[in-house]
Amino acid sequence: MAMDDLTPNRASRRAGFSNNHDLGVAVVGLGYWGPNLVRALFELEGVRVTHLCDADPTRLERFRRRYPGVPTATEFDAVLADPAVDAVLIATPVFTHFELASRSLRAGKHTFVEKPLAPSAATADELIEIADEMDLMLMCGHTFVYSPPVRTVKELLRRNELGDIYFISSSRVNLGLHQPDVSVIWDLAPHDFSILLYWLEEQPDFVSAMGRDSVMPGITDVAFIDLQFPSGILSHVELSWLAPSKLRRTVIVGSEKMVVYDDSSPEPIRVFDSGVVYKNPETFGEYQLSYRTGDIVSLKVDTAEPLMLELEDFTRAIRERTVPDAHSGLARDVVALTEAAEDSLQRMVTDVGV
Amino acid sequence: MAMDDLTPNRASRRAGFSNNHDLGVAVVGLGYWGPNLVRALFELEGVRVTHLCDADPTRLERFRRRYPGVPTATEFDAVLADPAVDAVLIATPVFTHFELASRSLRAGKHTFVEKPLAPSAATADELIEIADEMDLMLMCGHTFVYSPPVRTVKELLRRNELGDIYFISSSRVNLGLHQPDVSVIWDLAPHDFSILLYWLEEQPDFVSAMGRDSVMPGITDVAFIDLQFPSGILSHVELSWLAPSKLRRTVIVGSEKMVVYDDSSPEPIRVFDSGVVYKNPETFGEYQLSYRTGDIVSLKVDTAEPLMLELEDFTRAIRERTVPDAHSGLARDVVALTEAAEDSLQRMVTDVGV
Amino acid sequence: MAMDDLTPNRASRRAGFSNNHDLGVAVVGLGYWGPNLVRALFELEGVRVTHLCDADPTRLERFRRRYPGVPTATEFDAVLADPAVDAVLIATPVFTHFELASRSLRAGKHTFVEKPLAPSAATADELIEIADEMDLMLMCGHTFVYSPPVRTVKELLRRNELGDIYFISSSRVNLGLHQPDVSVIWDLAPHDFSILLYWLEEQPDFVSAMGRDSVMPGITDVAFIDLQFPSGILSHVELSWLAPSKLRRTVIVGSEKMVVYDDSSPEPIRVFDSGVVYKNPETFGEYQLSYRTGDIVSLKVDTAEPLMLELEDFTRAIRERTVPDAHSGLARDVVALTEAAEDSLQRMVTDVGV
Amino acid sequence: MAMDDLTPNRASRRAGFSNNHDLGVAVVGLGYWGPNLVRALFELEGVRVTHLCDADPTRLERFRRRYPGVPTATEFDAVLADPAVDAVLIATPVFTHFELASRSLRAGKHTFVEKPLAPSAATADELIEIADEMDLMLMCGHTFVYSPPVRTVKELLRRNELGDIYFISSSRVNLGLHQPDVSVIWDLAPHDFSILLYWLEEQPDFVSAMGRDSVMPGITDVAFIDLQFPSGILSHVELSWLAPSKLRRTVIVGSEKMVVYDDSSPEPIRVFDSGVVYKNPETFGEYQLSYRTGDIVSLKVDTAEPLMLELEDFTRAIRERTVPDAHSGLARDVVALTEAAEDSLQRMVTDVGV
Repeated sequence: MAMDDLTPNRASRRAGFSNNHDLGVAVVGLGYWGPNLVRALFELEGVRVTHLCDADPTRLERFRRRYPGVPTATEFDAVLADPAVDAVLIATPVFTHFELASRSLRAGKHTFVEKPLAPSAATADELIEIADEMDLMLMCGHTFVYSPPVRTVKELLRRNELGDIYFISSSRVNLGLHQPDVSVIWDLAPHDFSILLYWLEEQPDFVSAMGRDSVMPGITDVAFIDLQFPSGILSHVELSWLAPSKLRRTVIVGSEKMVVYDDSSPEPIRVFDSGVVYKNPETFGEYQLSYRTGDIVSLKVDTAEPLMLELEDFTRAIRERTVPDAHSGLARDVVALTEAAEDSLQRMVTDVGV
Repeated sequence: MAMDDLTPNRASRRAGFSNNHDLGVAVVGLGYWGPNLVRALFELEGVRVTHLCDADPTRLERFRRRYPGVPTATEFDAVLADPAVDAVLIATPVFTHFELASRSLRAGKHTFVEKPLAPSAATADELIEIADEMDLMLMCGHTFVYSPPVRTVKELLRRNELGDIYFISSSRVNLGLHQPDVSVIWDLAPHDFSILLYWLEEQPDFVSAMGRDSVMPGITDVAFIDLQFPSGILSHVELSWLAPSKLRRTVIVGSEKMVVYDDSSPEPIRVFDSGVVYKNPETFGEYQLSYRTGDIVSLKVDTAEPLMLELEDFTRAIRERTVPDAHSGLARDVVALTEAAEDSLQRMVTDVGV
Repeated sequence: MAMDDLTPNRASRRAGFSNNHDLGVAVVGLGYWGPNLVRALFELEGVRVTHLCDADPTRLERFRRRYPGVPTATEFDAVLADPAVDAVLIATPVFTHFELASRSLRAGKHTFVEKPLAPSAATADELIEIADEMDLMLMCGHTFVYSPPVRTVKELLRRNELGDIYFISSSRVNLGLHQPDVSVIWDLAPHDFSILLYWLEEQPDFVSAMGRDSVMPGITDVAFIDLQFPSGILSHVELSWLAPSKLRRTVIVGSEKMVVYDDSSPEPIRVFDSGVVYKNPETFGEYQLSYRTGDIVSLKVDTAEPLMLELEDFTRAIRERTVPDAHSGLARDVVALTEAAEDSLQRMVTDVGV
Repeated sequence: MAMDDLTPNRASRRAGFSNNHDLGVAVVGLGYWGPNLVRALFELEGVRVTHLCDADPTRLERFRRRYPGVPTATEFDAVLADPAVDAVLIATPVFTHFELASRSLRAGKHTFVEKPLAPSAATADELIEIADEMDLMLMCGHTFVYSPPVRTVKELLRRNELGDIYFISSSRVNLGLHQPDVSVIWDLAPHDFSILLYWLEEQPDFVSAMGRDSVMPGITDVAFIDLQFPSGILSHVELSWLAPSKLRRTVIVGSEKMVVYDDSSPEPIRVFDSGVVYKNPETFGEYQLSYRTGDIVSLKVDTAEPLMLELEDFTRAIRERTVPDAHSGLARDVVALTEAAEDSLQRMVTDVGV
């Protein structure tokens, strides 16, 4: 992964960034998610917002009123040309990610791209290569990786408290919002995939998806995805824009314990001390299973805001040359997986009728 | 389906069964489920339990004490030989279903077989053929078809209250009990398949399954099954013997309304007056979606016992030559689907490693 | 309490009961609860059901069929006259408890009375006196005292895990069933009172109740009861036959931890590691509070049947002269409390209008 | 109630307020709740924020940065002296409400006071009198009266859908925050009391409270309050700063239907079509009850922000001389009730020990 082979040598080639001054940060794209980035940046220590950039002057006007004094720009080039900009945060539509991020990197700016990093594994790879070449930080906004419940599960896995993981089953469903140009897979799967890759630290070697375009012809709005990892772990992800109520629930089944992570619940992480013990048969035909059910612990989970943790990780990564948790390698693998799931779905759709 | 082509002519060939006397019924197999059948039969009007039959004399002894006066038998032939037996209920292990049911039918007895009807579509077909030949009732114990919440949904579908059905997603998971010789698919899928076939009245033309033998080598204990129906309806079924808590939940998403059927909840049927309206674009590139969210109605559901309704349907079918809801055609299709899912799983398992 | 002052001397006066033979037990009253006692007794070791007694011959007939061989009686005297009867279980309406129990005790039978023990503290005291005189076991069917979740809380209190108990708040509500002749207080409060007295081992010195006869004139169907204990613990009990859904929930708030006991939940005991720490002010006008919120643990609770545990305790108490948990002293205090709550309610009703 | 006797004559005496210009509004007190008022006022049409006033210059500094251009003041007199101020919103501690509101009214300003209106019924009456005299609008910030679920219930009551109301039982509990100088009754009861008075449009004639100062000596942190209304409706309110989890739940039991209003639930209003029918006995000693259980409807509830609706009602009341829902008469009755509950508690505390 890109960040792993940063060497001190190459680091020294970097445009001298001094830790003494505030990091100059520009935000590009003020549509759905950009405003959240802006708000969080204003609360962040050691950061100065140098530019708010959007092609739409009306949007900019609104931000000028809310954040008087911050320069605005309708032209991306104006941002790139300003030497006060150390880092660029890109929150524009996915199909623009590659172009904007590559231009930002080539202009010598550390670059943060909203999820997904790029519209294809190939373009994601190219971005990583450019970042590498320019010796700059490239990071992707996989906010769930910074979500306290997700990190609590990561900690349980790190300490091996769940035993061997058998399978992970997720549902991420809600009523709407349909995206006009991408499937529910491109819209929602990156969330689950980033979580799975962060937890398991391995890439699946089998992906299969089934889905349907229930409402708008050509736009898949419900999908069931199966993944199989080299370690044998199975994973299932249900995604839908058509659901009676919001559900964001993941069940992790291990040999020692099981976890229910429910993102919409006031008790987001519940650990079940339950399991099955299988005794190896000594003689042919015999076997013995015993079921264990114990206490259920609803873990106290930190209430920090994931977005703040994410941006802190980004600025720390720039200052201290650390590898952020939502590093470009993970972001690239998320894109590759999403692409594979989408491909499988397309094949499925044509295969049917047999 | 078998029952559909019963014609008056062939009906008249039947061994004259008079409606005036009680139906003589024998129960074969007193293991896990048989005792429930026995208890229910004793509460049923117009039925006389003529035989309790099990190969294990200890079990029989227990029943003799509980139901003094009812003849018991360790030999199946003794049951078949008795002319007082009008119908035989078979609640033995699956691998014996075909042999016992075919002998029962050939002996001229109406026959009720616990689910699944037979271990393969081929043997199920053969049973149906024999019943047809002998002009006898053959029915399968798909109790869920008689469960009041399932029937409430059927009624909603019949009245077309949900609009076009887009997809149906089910979870049937619990901790245990692992079966020693069959996969979780053979153990649990027949429940969901019988419900789906009863509701939709069509057979899927695409089945695909993914699973894993987490605990016992060779015994699949978690499976994710995708089905596609000719009408376009998609269905997904999650089955597992490994789960932090019991879940029996089915979501039905229609164009007009959505339903959550939760069998473990005191409010088993909740109807969501929610949906998406898609306006056909008039000019290229335009489209319009609007989301509708209304009241949620938790329907009052009848509290009748499904098993009683099922046995009543069986006796009525015999007496009045009606087609029971859990008819042999549906039961045969459930077996075919289960077989297809299991096959898909086997293929998957070998395909992987690529 | 009656059982506490059993002395070896007085014990030796007892009609010699040998541990070698089965305890002969008669059940009197086969209406609502009696059949449960009968069923449980048949499963109990070391017990022989010697009589089923009810004034209604039709009821007896039904039991004769279900339990052939057990003698039945419409006359209570017949039961008392039989020397094979060691103990009598009384499950008749409350207003008969005193007469039947005193006759049973005077006839030399150990006596178990369904809750409440008697219709007044005065008659309860008299029963205890007779039992004492006759040196016989008198116990009351406060089944909740044997319920595993209630015992789990008792254990937490015994180990002082909750710290100082501040207050306990309960709701026991449902739709129906209205009793024709007693208030909701006499119907439901004995459950909560028996639990509170078992847990706290002290009798409140303040009782106050408010209520209303919403449906039937003169029959209180909703009541709110406040209790204050000498230790300072406050308790509140909400009772109602008018409720949108069944709720049996008790919250125990301690200085160290809090417990939610929900009898209708699959997770009946949840322990919250939450609390408030109050630092004693050093200077006038200062104070400091800090709030602590930690994990929530849903304790695994035993699944034993309370009724079996209760009857086992009764037979053990007879054989081994131990004090059962639902001893007559506790039962008497429950009656006294219920009486006090009912009295307070009556006063309230007349006081109003001021 | 004050607003009811506004007559056109007296209205014409008012300082001429023209509907053409924006209403000039000052906010006094920028501690806990004031900032919410400021934020909402900036979103409100037809309103100009003329002053932000707080005794603490540091607080003011923060607001100057966030809302550049708005005049700030540390002196209340400066606000009152400004003729551009049409209305004053007071969000200071309760013990200052009377002084500040009376000065504001006497200075000729329409006045909005945060709940509770005043620290006693006597001072509340005095405020109403002054407002009346000066012919000015006096309103209190009982936000719950504008909460969509509360208004939905009001609508059900208006349409008499629940039948006769038997009783209303509420819980408003949470862990913290203890107030240093007032009891949980003064802190939380005004919420429930404002809701009850808004719904029922009658004042209780009986109030009784029980409570305890569990943590800080002298500061009641748990209370159980009983209310009885002239119509016979009973109400119970449980309040606590000591609770394992947040609960804001009110059950309304009517003769026709029952409602659960759960403010923390995504389904805040659930209507249960359940009830008991009592047939008047024709002959002495007879009676007949039948229980009815039907569908449960979770009503779709508007998502408007209560605070916005409240401020809109205030400005409309000023402009159009309408009576706002949270009018001064209701606010006065809330204070009277809170005082009565607190008094009852004090009496209870001394009575005990009897």
